[in-house]
Amino acid sequence: MVHEHTYKQFDADLEGIRSRVLQMGGLVEEQISNAIEALISANLELAEQVINNDHQVNALEVGLDEDCTQIIARRQPTASDLRMVMTVVKTITDLERIGDEAAKIARMARRIHESDRLTQPRFNEIKYMANVVLEMLRRALDGFARLDVSSAADIVRQDMQVDEEFRLVLRHLITFMMEDPRTISVFIDIMFVAKAIERMGDHAKNMSEYVVYMVKGKDVRHTTVEEIERVAQR
Amino acid sequence: MVHEHTYKQFDADLEGIRSRVLQMGGLVEEQISNAIEALISANLELAEQVINNDHQVNALEVGLDEDCTQIIARRQPTASDLRMVMTVVKTITDLERIGDEAAKIARMARRIHESDRLTQPRFNEIKYMANVVLEMLRRALDGFARLDVSSAADIVRQDMQVDEEFRLVLRHLITFMMEDPRTISVFIDIMFVAKAIERMGDHAKNMSEYVVYMVKGKDVRHTTVEEIERVAQR
Repeated sequence: MVHEHTYKQFDADLEGIRSRVLQMGGLVEEQISNAIEALISANLELAEQVINNDHQVNALEVGLDEDCTQIIARRQPTASDLRMVMTVVKTITDLERIGDEAAKIARMARRIHESDRLTQPRFNEIKYMANVVLEMLRRALDGFARLDVSSAADIVRQDMQVDEEFRLVLRHLITFMMEDPRTISVFIDIMFVAKAIERMGDHAKNMSEYVVYMVKGKDVRHTTVEEIERVAQR
Repeated sequence: MVHEHTYKQFDADLEGIRSRVLQMGGLVEEQISNAIEALISANLELAEQVINNDHQVNALEVGLDEDCTQIIARRQPTASDLRMVMTVVKTITDLERIGDEAAKIARMARRIHESDRLTQPRFNEIKYMANVVLEMLRRALDGFARLDVSSAADIVRQDMQVDEEFRLVLRHLITFMMEDPRTISVFIDIMFVAKAIERMGDHAKNMSEYVVYMVKGKDVRHTTVEEIERVAQR
């Protein structure tokens, strides 16, 4: 009976960690949406809120990390349970860094909209990139929640699309700067926003690769999208 | 006797992992030096070599990650042994990302030196930043090797210095671009080199914070340099 009790407690511990990862993921999604909204609509209050909320993301990371170490020490998980815990340890690092990038975008939004406006930048491409990254993140978290690897290869493909879009944005921004050098400063800020979104895509991709490791027991980082597809389907 | 044998094997496993982290660290240091050298001296062969060696860094990360999971599953470490293994898991993620940034710099070096030269950029500030980051990385690895936290707060201070230097470089590059808009493209490439070095600094700082966790059992991420100093000294 003690044995059974211990197992139940272990499952409850794991479930608690899983649900907190999803909570952290939800908060990070919100931080991205709000940072982009603050940038596009010049909402400096919202930018401030994103900057102030970053510590919540950090606190969730630190707490989850500690809980993972505790679970390993006390419950000594093996096989798929251990893979789950190790996946959480890795996933929260990437989530925290996505949160950092969101806070950076919020700080850029503040700078861009507080400076003298020589130009009225349009943010269509930025918004498009951010939407792709948000979808990648949602799908990666969904895969984690459902132990489902069916979207992993697709997320990697979306990351390539985001990288391509980043290069396109870069070319456009350089053209604008050459046309009117007075706009260089503001477009460099926007360039760093695009770079931050591109980084977020990398982190979401990492997360989806960890899900494949968790479910299939195979490390597919640094491989090809075809290899991920192959592993996911078997 | 079996018991003693098991302990000895465990110590040997841990020692093997530690020495491979240091090997990975040495390789990453070399990748940074070579990437910067390739950039400064327009050595495209060396740039190629850095790009081609990145997979070695990745392979060390994947191998070490697997070994850490194996050690946890088989040896069920607790307390400081477990902290050591978890520190390795985190450290190699940052080392791998520093390696990525070095490869990015090598690709930028190729682009910068293959393009039509409208300008002869000087790389004094880039070289200075890279040297600070290399020193941070060496000190973080040294702290890891010796279980020594005495330089942790200093490494965090060096990271602030690198961030400040990055902002300075950015201002200078913007001035150059405004003076001669034909140079915008090449200076934006150099800006991304500076950004890559700044990111490396962040990763080296993370590594030194993990050393504090490993040795002192306290998570000092997202705190202040004073708090790190306090924890390190107790």
